[in-house]
Amino acid sequence: MKISVHAMSVELLASALSNLSAVLEKGHAHAVARKFDPAVLLAARLAPDMFPLTRQVQIATDVAKGGAARLAGREPPKFEDNEQTFEELRTRLARTIDFVKSTPASALEGAEDRDIKLPARDRTLEFKGLEYLQRFVIPNVFFHSTMAYAILRHNGVELGKKDFLTGNGPAF
Amino acid sequence: MKISVHAMSVELLASALSNLSAVLEKGHAHAVARKFDPAVLLAARLAPDMFPLTRQVQIATDVAKGGAARLAGREPPKFEDNEQTFEELRTRLARTIDFVKSTPASALEGAEDRDIKLPARDRTLEFKGLEYLQRFVIPNVFFHSTMAYAILRHNGVELGKKDFLTGNGPAF
Repeated sequence: MKISVHAMSVELLASALSNLSAVLEKGHAHAVARKFDPAVLLAARLAPDMFPLTRQVQIATDVAKGGAARLAGREPPKFEDNEQTFEELRTRLARTIDFVKSTPASALEGAEDRDIKLPARDRTLEFKGLEYLQRFVIPNVFFHSTMAYAILRHNGVELGKKDFLTGNGPAF
Repeated sequence: MKISVHAMSVELLASALSNLSAVLEKGHAHAVARKFDPAVLLAARLAPDMFPLTRQVQIATDVAKGGAARLAGREPPKFEDNEQTFEELRTRLARTIDFVKSTPASALEGAEDRDIKLPARDRTLEFKGLEYLQRFVIPNVFFHSTMAYAILRHNGVELGKKDFLTGNGPAF
């Protein structure tokens, strides 16, 4: 009854981000087909004090690259948070997927017991690797990916759960 | 670099559902405080052809109990899908959490390689246990939990990501 940290971090996160990229592609195509500025969707929110679509994607990638990096004892790359278009967001997703997949399997040796220190606004959060993955990395990446999907769907983009679960890949 | 299926299924799913229950509790309290019928929130949707809050919670619990059951070679309990109130939805969540937590650790032995057959609308989906957990169970449970949160937040309920990540438990 043992599975690898690699399967539940690198594989799971890369798959979630790749599906999110396919969801964004549909959002972009929708704006182009309806002839409205795609930036309207990038700035859309579900509530006035929630983050817009662009920020949801930025956070999903930040948590994924930070997660894969910290579990492997590596430094995550810093991105500038200056994306203005769907293409730029999808490039950010591709860069994140590449980084996540570059995690050496050997570096995840013992990751479940690694002491993780996560700088937060006013303090440092501390986790063991397993709890960090279970309760922080995975829930956060799916939360922000789903929120991106929800913003697009709420704004009329034709999406189904197949897009979220398998993206451009074959259906189950 | 090995972690247990138990940690990534039973523990992860029970935690997600428990947090969802805390999110629903805030939704209910919001309706009571504003003196409107809580059923308005239960029927709320983010788009006319998306599922309302009640159905999002029902699906999150279905995937969680089905996931824990199939990985362990057990039969999931059937629920009637007749919840009419926040209290009834939270009871459904509590029953699901109890069932998920009742999974014997020994029954998850080898679960990652188990052949999973999942009856879908028009065919039977087939997975190995690990892929079923990674690509179906976990993404679906977080998708529907996040959608429930999004529906409430969109309707003015004061929620923050802390509610989603740690529910009524202590913050990280």
